[in-house]
Amino acid sequence: MAEQLNTEPTDIVASVNIAELEELLLGKWAEARRGSRKLVKDSRLHKIEGLTKEEHRARVMEQMHLLAEAGMVRKPFPEEFGGESDNGGNIAAFEELVTADPSLQIKAGVHWGLFGSAVLHLGSAEHHRRWLPDILDLTVPGAFAMTEVGHGSDVASIGTTATYDADSEAFILHSPFPAATKRYLGNAANDAKDAVVFAQLITNGVNHGVHCFYVNIRDDQGNPLPGITITDDGHKGGLNGIDNGRFTFDHVEVPRTHLLDRYGSVEPDGTYSSPIDSPGRRFFTMLGTLVQGRVSLTGAAVAASRIALIGAVTYGNQRRQFNAASSTEEEVLLDYQLHQRRLIPRLATTLAAGFAQEKLLEKFDDVFSGRDDTDANRQELETLAAAIKPTATWHALDTIQEAREACGGAGFISENRFTSLRADLDVYVTFEGDNNVLLQLVAKRLLSDYASEFKNADVAALASYVATQAGSTVMHRFGLRQALQTVQDTGDERRSANWFKQTEVQRNLLTSRVRQMVVDVANELRSASKLPQAEQAKVFNEHQYEIINAAKAHADLLLWEAFTDALDHIKDPGTKEVMTWLRDIYALTTIEQTLDWYLGNGRISVQRARTLSPYINRLLARVRPHVQDVVDAFGYEPEHIRMEVASGDELIRQEEAMEYYRKMRASTDAPVDEKVLREREKTAARRR
Amino acid sequence: MAEQLNTEPTDIVASVNIAELEELLLGKWAEARRGSRKLVKDSRLHKIEGLTKEEHRARVMEQMHLLAEAGMVRKPFPEEFGGESDNGGNIAAFEELVTADPSLQIKAGVHWGLFGSAVLHLGSAEHHRRWLPDILDLTVPGAFAMTEVGHGSDVASIGTTATYDADSEAFILHSPFPAATKRYLGNAANDAKDAVVFAQLITNGVNHGVHCFYVNIRDDQGNPLPGITITDDGHKGGLNGIDNGRFTFDHVEVPRTHLLDRYGSVEPDGTYSSPIDSPGRRFFTMLGTLVQGRVSLTGAAVAASRIALIGAVTYGNQRRQFNAASSTEEEVLLDYQLHQRRLIPRLATTLAAGFAQEKLLEKFDDVFSGRDDTDANRQELETLAAAIKPTATWHALDTIQEAREACGGAGFISENRFTSLRADLDVYVTFEGDNNVLLQLVAKRLLSDYASEFKNADVAALASYVATQAGSTVMHRFGLRQALQTVQDTGDERRSANWFKQTEVQRNLLTSRVRQMVVDVANELRSASKLPQAEQAKVFNEHQYEIINAAKAHADLLLWEAFTDALDHIKDPGTKEVMTWLRDIYALTTIEQTLDWYLGNGRISVQRARTLSPYINRLLARVRPHVQDVVDAFGYEPEHIRMEVASGDELIRQEEAMEYYRKMRASTDAPVDEKVLREREKTAARRR
Repeated sequence: MAEQLNTEPTDIVASVNIAELEELLLGKWAEARRGSRKLVKDSRLHKIEGLTKEEHRARVMEQMHLLAEAGMVRKPFPEEFGGESDNGGNIAAFEELVTADPSLQIKAGVHWGLFGSAVLHLGSAEHHRRWLPDILDLTVPGAFAMTEVGHGSDVASIGTTATYDADSEAFILHSPFPAATKRYLGNAANDAKDAVVFAQLITNGVNHGVHCFYVNIRDDQGNPLPGITITDDGHKGGLNGIDNGRFTFDHVEVPRTHLLDRYGSVEPDGTYSSPIDSPGRRFFTMLGTLVQGRVSLTGAAVAASRIALIGAVTYGNQRRQFNAASSTEEEVLLDYQLHQRRLIPRLATTLAAGFAQEKLLEKFDDVFSGRDDTDANRQELETLAAAIKPTATWHALDTIQEAREACGGAGFISENRFTSLRADLDVYVTFEGDNNVLLQLVAKRLLSDYASEFKNADVAALASYVATQAGSTVMHRFGLRQALQTVQDTGDERRSANWFKQTEVQRNLLTSRVRQMVVDVANELRSASKLPQAEQAKVFNEHQYEIINAAKAHADLLLWEAFTDALDHIKDPGTKEVMTWLRDIYALTTIEQTLDWYLGNGRISVQRARTLSPYINRLLARVRPHVQDVVDAFGYEPEHIRMEVASGDELIRQEEAMEYYRKMRASTDAPVDEKVLREREKTAARRR
Repeated sequence: MAEQLNTEPTDIVASVNIAELEELLLGKWAEARRGSRKLVKDSRLHKIEGLTKEEHRARVMEQMHLLAEAGMVRKPFPEEFGGESDNGGNIAAFEELVTADPSLQIKAGVHWGLFGSAVLHLGSAEHHRRWLPDILDLTVPGAFAMTEVGHGSDVASIGTTATYDADSEAFILHSPFPAATKRYLGNAANDAKDAVVFAQLITNGVNHGVHCFYVNIRDDQGNPLPGITITDDGHKGGLNGIDNGRFTFDHVEVPRTHLLDRYGSVEPDGTYSSPIDSPGRRFFTMLGTLVQGRVSLTGAAVAASRIALIGAVTYGNQRRQFNAASSTEEEVLLDYQLHQRRLIPRLATTLAAGFAQEKLLEKFDDVFSGRDDTDANRQELETLAAAIKPTATWHALDTIQEAREACGGAGFISENRFTSLRADLDVYVTFEGDNNVLLQLVAKRLLSDYASEFKNADVAALASYVATQAGSTVMHRFGLRQALQTVQDTGDERRSANWFKQTEVQRNLLTSRVRQMVVDVANELRSASKLPQAEQAKVFNEHQYEIINAAKAHADLLLWEAFTDALDHIKDPGTKEVMTWLRDIYALTTIEQTLDWYLGNGRISVQRARTLSPYINRLLARVRPHVQDVVDAFGYEPEHIRMEVASGDELIRQEEAMEYYRKMRASTDAPVDEKVLREREKTAARRR
């Protein structure tokens, strides 16, 4: 039945050229990724499950020294410090560390990526010469002290103060109340000798906002310096290879020259100056370097999703359970429709997220290489990262979990790594920018883009803007468009499928959703724009859920665009066919999840909507024979995967069992089933 | 704006009588729950985070002895063995153990609930006298050896054989191939002295199917007996207080009298007999005792969801972040619409699941007490458990995760227990019946109920059956019904809300979805009923996703019915009001999640559908002031909760910080913000 509806021209034989697909997935920084993957085959870098946090911390610190020796960590730093100023390649290489141990990825990220980068991007040339060499070779491990007990996402409101004292030519660093304690700082509990500390810079009676200070934390014996209290954040839900901890400062003197002063400096007499006039823009520029953390978390989330899918797909192709179709042979799990539904759309999204990450990385490299470091491009980078990071990190948790469940009990045993990866990646959704806060940032950007596009437009222009997309609010209200579609569209499944698989139809559906949602909220907010602050905030809050959904829809679209663009780079027709199906699966399952919106807004007729889910099911069955090839094209080797479920042992066990039963059936003294016996008796009785 | 749409008669002041609600939630077995809650306040029973698996295992084994001493574990056993034959009370008490340590709940469940129960329910009076005393006082810890490496969900296909040998009057227990190794057995790696082992019973050349044998596993020194190989399953994603392991049997002699022979016995000469003639029914009867595990997992999942919500709701009421509405005071998290959206629907579902669990427990008690132990009622119990267990356990993972994310970084620290609870409860979704396999069981039951209802009905009767619900396939195809609704329903928000909040409307919507989905699939399957086995299996498989969704919809309905029934038992009008809103939130968010189905099948008009989400948002805002009272009514004390986020410390920290800023503002030498300064300058410049 499914085959009758297959309307593809059949000249192209679907197949996967694994080598070509692998190359495509490796992307622009293939060499950096390959180098990093080669490095992390070293078993000394691999996570050992079940260590105590003390053992795990010690192991990861040793691994940090191996990384420092390997030199890879210098990549984004200037040549003067042994680097290549290669920002894109650095992140690409970094992402791969997650396959060894996410604790290593994050601890290295804290030290070189946050602490080291803060010195590089916020400090002066003098600061670089003074501190970078010891940071790069890990002589001075460091912490990045921004988050406080009372303020995570809202960095501008942190409580720690650095008040300049002209007499001592020093800042007095102070935690004025317990909520201002710095918390969740990697490297803080054990290892950090120094730290970059974010605090409100106060001089001559003016608070100039959050600035970054280089602060000595421990003496050579590893004891906290006077005025500094360090406590351990203790055991965590994952990433226990990292020693997170807290700093409290009690009037600690920090020399004036320790202010990382690229964007704001203080003269000996206390005079403040900054190359950026607006305090708001200055703050966001200083925090801009943080985007690198978001980019690398996104990439790591994609890598972890890939590992999980390799495990579950391989197992799903070998494991057998229940025998519906035959009385002697059980079904392979992946032949079940439900199993396809569980794994293949997640595979499609993982591919989409990988392509989106590649685009994000390119934009990041453009900005950080200085090739295109305009304010506008920086803002685009921020928004892109803020959209893709939440999507990719939540997707990773969802995919790892589904993969673990798809392997049943085996998925729960640590040797299969699903639970371990999930536990470690859990915090990716709330750190380096809480996912929901980031989506709110995206939403505000969508609203302001919309506003600037229509600053001078009248209502009529607005209505036509919306109508040219695929319909209009006015039209839905009166059901006009819908009636129209009913006439055009009889719900013929083949015609529907032909419609859904068109790239332009998918683009139009996904784009129109974002646009319409933004328009709808913008209209509501417009009416509140003259109200007092508290009232405006109330109206905004009454639409927060809607606008966050618009931001999610925007991210869905970004992933789809990246996937669609990637298709153009596939040469082998068979591979292109399979990947196009997967892109369609990504698009159509995304639309299916919010189908109520498309129906409610008249973008898809009821008749077409009813054909969507069956069409997706047929696409899944079509792609199913190729999914092993696709996960093989992720290019990971056994040293990266390290899962019993992906080892092929299950296939051997299944064959042994089948061989046993084959022999049994062939033997004359094999026991007969009571059920069979009873049926024979019944038949005999009937004959009598 | 929201208030204008509030159409409730305002005589009733919404409020929560915490004591009354607590009593309602404690349910029929309040006393057993209270007793168990009192017991688990003992800190010796509490999980310590970050132990090695060896330390954790040892601790939980000590806790097992404390439980044995407390005597609670005897509750479901007959008076002869110090019990009360109280099955419902036993499970109710058991569920509460999860608040102490899920490992303890599960290890106790394996020993008393599975191993002990198998002897009780599958053994003879002689077996009871011989083994129960040592089992009950934990002199003989036991394992439950059913699952094999090759077969989890499909128990009928296990490979282990027990072949009767009349000469030695013994069964020869054997693992014929590696996939027949017993795996994931709690208590196996360290502690079990004996085990109940499930194997294919073969005697006189006939395989009578799976039976249960009492097998000695270790000698008094703790070494495996000859022919038995034991290996450790190793570190797991959670529940590391339990020593899961594997058994392999190499021709192990098990005395004939060790067959637990209530449903099947073997004479010394090898003659087999059973009180149940049909091998199929016999198998399901023997496995019927397993339902108790599913019931207790469901209850534990509800308890864990409650603990997580207590943490997140309390924190959400104290934690402040960002200041949109005021320049001096930040918002409390729960005042954000998105935060309400994240937590309150999950609170509503947790309540629904709790009420459904109470109904399940009542049915379980009816069957196991013998009060209503008919085949039909047993089957109903099985189906009910198969529907509610997946829903409640997945819900628990989702809720714990959302609660952890809602607490940001604090949610990731083990002292707040979210990650620990989630890791431990993870396996609840795949053990004691994989959730998807259980849903398939529900689906088959729905289909067979439908088939028996219409065995002799013709197509016209069928069509009218469907049409009387709320529409018909034929009608949707031509959009007739939809057009009709467009005329009736102008999308007026108040009228829509009045419609959505009606109990009968909710019932009709939820019921019609299950019915229509079953009818749709049944029609497809009917056409295949004459095809060969493999073809039938193929057609069924092509609708597997649909039918699993029907089973989920059925479970949603069961939860809604339980919640709705519970409302009748609330006396205090204010409490009833709040709980009715929460029931509405459960119903409407459930409908919202599958709104595309209601639209696509003409059950809700486009105009009404567009008002649903805003109406839910208003309901959330209405319930929001009462949610702390609701979670307080769960009745857990600090010794059960043990979370820093629920301790009230956050409130103190917030007040300290606010007090600091209040003093600052009042003081004359407080620093002025650069932003403020610049605005003053601008204003001054303009005046000049």
